[in-house]
Amino acid sequence: MKISELSKASGVALPTVKFYLREGLLQAGEVTGPNQAKYGPPHLRRLRFVRTLRDVGGLSIASIREVVAAIENEEAPLWEIMGVVVDALGGGAGAGREEGAEREQATMEVDGFLVAHGLPVRPGALARENLVDALLAVRNAFGMPLPVETFVPYERAVRELAEQEAALVQSFMAAPGVDRMAVIEFVVFGTILFEPVLLAFRRMWNEKATEPSEESGVGSRGSAADEAG
Amino acid sequence: MKISELSKASGVALPTVKFYLREGLLQAGEVTGPNQAKYGPPHLRRLRFVRTLRDVGGLSIASIREVVAAIENEEAPLWEIMGVVVDALGGGAGAGREEGAEREQATMEVDGFLVAHGLPVRPGALARENLVDALLAVRNAFGMPLPVETFVPYERAVRELAEQEAALVQSFMAAPGVDRMAVIEFVVFGTILFEPVLLAFRRMWNEKATEPSEESGVGSRGSAADEAG
Repeated sequence: MKISELSKASGVALPTVKFYLREGLLQAGEVTGPNQAKYGPPHLRRLRFVRTLRDVGGLSIASIREVVAAIENEEAPLWEIMGVVVDALGGGAGAGREEGAEREQATMEVDGFLVAHGLPVRPGALARENLVDALLAVRNAFGMPLPVETFVPYERAVRELAEQEAALVQSFMAAPGVDRMAVIEFVVFGTILFEPVLLAFRRMWNEKATEPSEESGVGSRGSAADEAG
Repeated sequence: MKISELSKASGVALPTVKFYLREGLLQAGEVTGPNQAKYGPPHLRRLRFVRTLRDVGGLSIASIREVVAAIENEEAPLWEIMGVVVDALGGGAGAGREEGAEREQATMEVDGFLVAHGLPVRPGALARENLVDALLAVRNAFGMPLPVETFVPYERAVRELAEQEAALVQSFMAAPGVDRMAVIEFVVFGTILFEPVLLAFRRMWNEKATEPSEESGVGSRGSAADEAG
């Protein structure tokens, strides 16, 4: 199909498609004339991939370029691609990241925690920095030196989840007709797409825990308690 | 203490403290002279609260103003304050939110799911919209009409977590000397501060699941596999 048809089929605006081509996020089409190229299903697939990283994951163009480079290198193993994606997700309590004795101490504690829980992450992993940031933020907010063990229930909650997700990936890979790109999509999309789901449910449950209830509402019973439903 | 001392004690820059005063995020001090006011522990506490919402939660000034208004209304129950906070957290796959039959259908499915799981959220709850967005994003990314039941493991993971957190809140409230503001801080900070923790651990576990291992690594074993350890 022509580039205009690719735009229509993918739902990505034509100027954006052209921008992705220039930036190397979308692979070049098969040249069919002096100013024409042909595109196919791999291009559609790539556009869907890029849009998901961008719209749901909030990745920058530079980060997506790194992910795409890893994908286009057929030798790159899945864990390498995932490392790039996970680092690109960034976020968290990074504001005001400062070096210092307090941070060094927190980093040591987080590293100890990770090793103890079977999670010795690669050097420079951003998720580790996020944990250090979070530990410092927790201590700062509550005004006391809470231990890194405060993280235990959170690690446990997602570990069980991750085991289920890994099992799902295994059975997906065993299905007929599943190629490398399909596995990459499955793993990368799975990580990115369900983050908002996890947060949304937790927020709902935490909000609900403060509602007055027949049994043991945590909420103070104000005059509007009856409207709480 | 004077406003300059409040700035020093809180670690919040003086112009920022003055900005918060003007914006109503920080309560006025006790007037002691024509151009002077005195500040105390409640002001320090409020500054810490505002900074946590801002730096960790990423809340806008407008959102923080709403939270502060709810806090200053002594009649407002905790669940009302939490509702404001949770809505202000926003985020998620909201990009390109479009009305339409597809969204209406997804909303119905999400609502059914929430009721079935004991989570009938208030009308207009943003977390519900986030779930609808996520369901549409999942369907779009995988190119198939995955059922809302795909969310089951995520709901389950955070439900158990939320139960533990609620128990913690209960025992915190039972402790001596805990006032209303302390409970608000505990609940609000707990929700906000541990979101990055949850995501960081999940990313680590998901990345780890793709590493080659002795047992059953999901990762394709590239030439660099030996360095993965």
